[in-house]
Amino acid sequence: MGSDSDLPTLHPAVEVLEGLQVAVEVRVLSAHRTPLEMVNFAREAHNRGLQVIVAGAGGAAHLPGMVASLTTLPVIGVPVRSTMLSGVDSLHSIVQMPGGIPVATVAIGGGLNAGLLAAQILALQDHALMERLGAYRRQLHDAVIAKDQRLVE
Amino acid sequence: MGSDSDLPTLHPAVEVLEGLQVAVEVRVLSAHRTPLEMVNFAREAHNRGLQVIVAGAGGAAHLPGMVASLTTLPVIGVPVRSTMLSGVDSLHSIVQMPGGIPVATVAIGGGLNAGLLAAQILALQDHALMERLGAYRRQLHDAVIAKDQRLVE
Amino acid sequence: MGSDSDLPTLHPAVEVLEGLQVAVEVRVLSAHRTPLEMVNFAREAHNRGLQVIVAGAGGAAHLPGMVASLTTLPVIGVPVRSTMLSGVDSLHSIVQMPGGIPVATVAIGGGLNAGLLAAQILALQDHALMERLGAYRRQLHDAVIAKDQRLVE
Amino acid sequence: MGSDSDLPTLHPAVEVLEGLQVAVEVRVLSAHRTPLEMVNFAREAHNRGLQVIVAGAGGAAHLPGMVASLTTLPVIGVPVRSTMLSGVDSLHSIVQMPGGIPVATVAIGGGLNAGLLAAQILALQDHALMERLGAYRRQLHDAVIAKDQRLVE
Amino acid sequence: MGSDSDLPTLHPAVEVLEGLQVAVEVRVLSAHRTPLEMVNFAREAHNRGLQVIVAGAGGAAHLPGMVASLTTLPVIGVPVRSTMLSGVDSLHSIVQMPGGIPVATVAIGGGLNAGLLAAQILALQDHALMERLGAYRRQLHDAVIAKDQRLVE
Amino acid sequence: MGSDSDLPTLHPAVEVLEGLQVAVEVRVLSAHRTPLEMVNFAREAHNRGLQVIVAGAGGAAHLPGMVASLTTLPVIGVPVRSTMLSGVDSLHSIVQMPGGIPVATVAIGGGLNAGLLAAQILALQDHALMERLGAYRRQLHDAVIAKDQRLVE
Amino acid sequence: MGSDSDLPTLHPAVEVLEGLQVAVEVRVLSAHRTPLEMVNFAREAHNRGLQVIVAGAGGAAHLPGMVASLTTLPVIGVPVRSTMLSGVDSLHSIVQMPGGIPVATVAIGGGLNAGLLAAQILALQDHALMERLGAYRRQLHDAVIAKDQRLVE
Amino acid sequence: MGSDSDLPTLHPAVEVLEGLQVAVEVRVLSAHRTPLEMVNFAREAHNRGLQVIVAGAGGAAHLPGMVASLTTLPVIGVPVRSTMLSGVDSLHSIVQMPGGIPVATVAIGGGLNAGLLAAQILALQDHALMERLGAYRRQLHDAVIAKDQRLVE
Repeated sequence: MGSDSDLPTLHPAVEVLEGLQVAVEVRVLSAHRTPLEMVNFAREAHNRGLQVIVAGAGGAAHLPGMVASLTTLPVIGVPVRSTMLSGVDSLHSIVQMPGGIPVATVAIGGGLNAGLLAAQILALQDHALMERLGAYRRQLHDAVIAKDQRLVE
Repeated sequence: MGSDSDLPTLHPAVEVLEGLQVAVEVRVLSAHRTPLEMVNFAREAHNRGLQVIVAGAGGAAHLPGMVASLTTLPVIGVPVRSTMLSGVDSLHSIVQMPGGIPVATVAIGGGLNAGLLAAQILALQDHALMERLGAYRRQLHDAVIAKDQRLVE
Repeated sequence: MGSDSDLPTLHPAVEVLEGLQVAVEVRVLSAHRTPLEMVNFAREAHNRGLQVIVAGAGGAAHLPGMVASLTTLPVIGVPVRSTMLSGVDSLHSIVQMPGGIPVATVAIGGGLNAGLLAAQILALQDHALMERLGAYRRQLHDAVIAKDQRLVE
Repeated sequence: MGSDSDLPTLHPAVEVLEGLQVAVEVRVLSAHRTPLEMVNFAREAHNRGLQVIVAGAGGAAHLPGMVASLTTLPVIGVPVRSTMLSGVDSLHSIVQMPGGIPVATVAIGGGLNAGLLAAQILALQDHALMERLGAYRRQLHDAVIAKDQRLVE
Repeated sequence: MGSDSDLPTLHPAVEVLEGLQVAVEVRVLSAHRTPLEMVNFAREAHNRGLQVIVAGAGGAAHLPGMVASLTTLPVIGVPVRSTMLSGVDSLHSIVQMPGGIPVATVAIGGGLNAGLLAAQILALQDHALMERLGAYRRQLHDAVIAKDQRLVE
Repeated sequence: MGSDSDLPTLHPAVEVLEGLQVAVEVRVLSAHRTPLEMVNFAREAHNRGLQVIVAGAGGAAHLPGMVASLTTLPVIGVPVRSTMLSGVDSLHSIVQMPGGIPVATVAIGGGLNAGLLAAQILALQDHALMERLGAYRRQLHDAVIAKDQRLVE
Repeated sequence: MGSDSDLPTLHPAVEVLEGLQVAVEVRVLSAHRTPLEMVNFAREAHNRGLQVIVAGAGGAAHLPGMVASLTTLPVIGVPVRSTMLSGVDSLHSIVQMPGGIPVATVAIGGGLNAGLLAAQILALQDHALMERLGAYRRQLHDAVIAKDQRLVE
Repeated sequence: MGSDSDLPTLHPAVEVLEGLQVAVEVRVLSAHRTPLEMVNFAREAHNRGLQVIVAGAGGAAHLPGMVASLTTLPVIGVPVRSTMLSGVDSLHSIVQMPGGIPVATVAIGGGLNAGLLAAQILALQDHALMERLGAYRRQLHDAVIAKDQRLVE
């Protein structure tokens, strides 16, 4: 993430990944304040064995796109809600990438879904993880059914 | 894709994937006009051996999110430019998914990047594909350098 | 509705319909978390004797459009105010349906009007209900007149 | 409709209703240029035997809401695309009605869906019309399936 | 105004007009809840001796435009801030009037300026009022100068 | 107007005023390129006998607000459609004036209505002009009625 | 700045400039309430020895552009967050200047960056200031590194 | 600039700078396709004697902000009009920079003003350039006056 003020947005990603037994490394790296460290992190990510990178940022929000430009690993971008423009600026800066360098963008404030998307990508190589994701979905499903039944009764 | 009018947007995804030697299945499925076929497609995708699903749609653009709700495979959503609202409506409908069901969203009209993102995800299990992606990036890089040198001269 | 967090938005619909003596069935069904139950509900709605369906949802807000794609009953969509984009995303996802599958959309947060619209549709077959709707309008009218007179005095 | 320049937007409504064998009366009435005629039309609509009113308008787009304020018949509003703001202004003016006076709003430029929605409302009292609507849906469905098959082959 | 909830927005108009010794009549009239009273008010305004009409409304905000369609007196529209869309919907509904029927629109929540604009229009026939407006402007001017001097010291 | 490229937007104002026999002075003055001339024009307008000022501008569009700050005559602002943001920027810059300095804003591209609004303001002191405005409205009305009758036949 | 209510937005500019040992003059000048004083200030700025002007304003926000039209010194504009439109109106009014008269615009509420930008411009002639700016950047950098290390540990 | 498709937007900057006798170096550098070259360019810019950097980019538009993060020279950002969102995305990505790293942003498509702003910054150290800028402004002024006089005659 680009700043520790993004932590509340990204914490659900960490939490859901840990719940799904996926190893996570959490870093504070700023595209604008530590650009060289960001460049090094992104360039070495593949060799260090990372597989998917989740990057959250707000406002001009260059972190996800810059990381994506420096690696061919999948990069998931989380637009952090900005004080002034509700995150529309963050969303535009992250999703409107030029042809050639994709960022997999989730909803404004969508840390949870960033974690789940990372897990879904990793699960292509990990049958047990795919099953844990199936179980997670069933929980979501059952919670809705339970609410529906309480209402019907 | 939800309609054959989305083909120009999604064709670059097919093309780049074929160029990267990734097998592609192209389907026309509409969340609104063939909802049951769409449900069946999404539910069976994993068992049929599909690994990543690219879904483009415009306007209310429910196809990517509905497919994502019916599978734990990664789903990439491409907002198709709409006549009336330039694709802002498509972008909102695709990216603003609720917690639990992520869609990896690319830029409005971003078919090329959807294909590349799919390839980057698949390359986690396919070293040769990762190398082809690296070569693709070097081509993009070299084209910019060439333009820069022509200007400097 | 897609989640019980939508209840405050939809409760006025239930209330006004009950006040107008229209039978109401309230359900929690999620397009994304219980997609198959949603499909079954929508497909059976007509045979079960339902006449009008009010569906509220926020963010990507696929519920009203997906229900509409599975029935020829009139479907009224209520965009629920979203935390991030004030419901503009919900409005776009609900109102911008493709040709062939209409959703009768009301204002962001417009649960009350969704209920009234449902009653106005049912009143085409129910003269007494049409009269109760007329009485409801007269109450709105008289309340404004009373405020006006207090101000004039 | 509020002006004959709205005719291209509303013509699909007339056409689909005639195709479904629903009787249609087409009028040019302007909330701003013929306000008294509009008031009279809306007040007498129910007694004249009209059942559903489709009103299209662009820009400030007051026609659907004003008609709705003068009748308890269901009113369907069609935001006509405006030259300057792509119909966002029309959409806001039509959908954001105050509590008490609903307008069933369809997509910007959504004349076809306005006609279909009117038919779906009328079909609640007309079994044959409901069947014709089912047939219409099946045509939409079959056209998508045909395109899909051509692509698969 | 269309509802007494608009009073906080319009009260500054009344206050500044009374401070400028302009006679004011305050009414609650709703385009949607008391449409016929609104029609009568607007049609009789000129004969009753009214000269300028200030109309505030929020959301679909049809009041200023409908009043303007029924009189050739100048009508000033005040977009009231809406809960959901911050008054952008009110602004669009009021300012985007079709050719032929102007509404003099002020800022969202701009009740004070609506009152001043009304006074500036009336002052064309009232030299003393024009002078009071000049004095009002000098007060605004002097207050800024005083703040500037306090800062410089 | 701020530039002769604004002429197509403002020409209908001149034309309708001349048709209504109102004397018009047309000037090109730029808030940004001829700021001192603009200041002088606005300060002397009242003494030169001008009564209403119509000012059109696009983009940052400071002309109407700056003129309004330098005179207590009514100033009508016309947002000129901008190439990049369709005139939304012009509209914001003109309508969102601070408390104390109103600008009577009309629709984006609304030159015709600016002219009519000026005439409606002047007609408060000119009975014959008010009658010509009434006749103008009747022509608008009759044109709609004629179109309606052609359709009904 | 245009009003003392803009002080919280602009105070960080003053503070950072003083921290960087740059002489600052703070003034309250309103484009709309003290237009002539604003004109004089801008015209004399260069002769008085000012080098860079930072101007903040909200809503219609004419101050930065008007000052820029009256001097060839660089003018930095700070869009102040507006109550109604979150500063989007301020941003449009400041950044969308016509060709010929640039305003160097920073983020909505970006007082700090306005101060830093002014310092970066002045540092072109002041080697010691450029070094202080370098030190400032290193502090930003080190703070991120420290947070990152705390997280890694 | 980030791509040679940005050339039409940036060419006016080059042209006006050459007309003002300011030395210009034009480069094609892409934040996303040649990130390392961009990093090197920005880091060495000061030592190579560059004084002001103009960077144009469209869509996610990371180039100006990334360059700004790697130098303390003033960086001017030009939002290039994007096909899909008219440059609103470019504007957001460029102007909404986080505290600490300013980008001096000009209008969407504002290449000319970027050049002029660069010249105004350089003119602080170059009296002759400041005079040429004054002459440029007088030309703008005189062109407006000439148009005004042609209209008055």
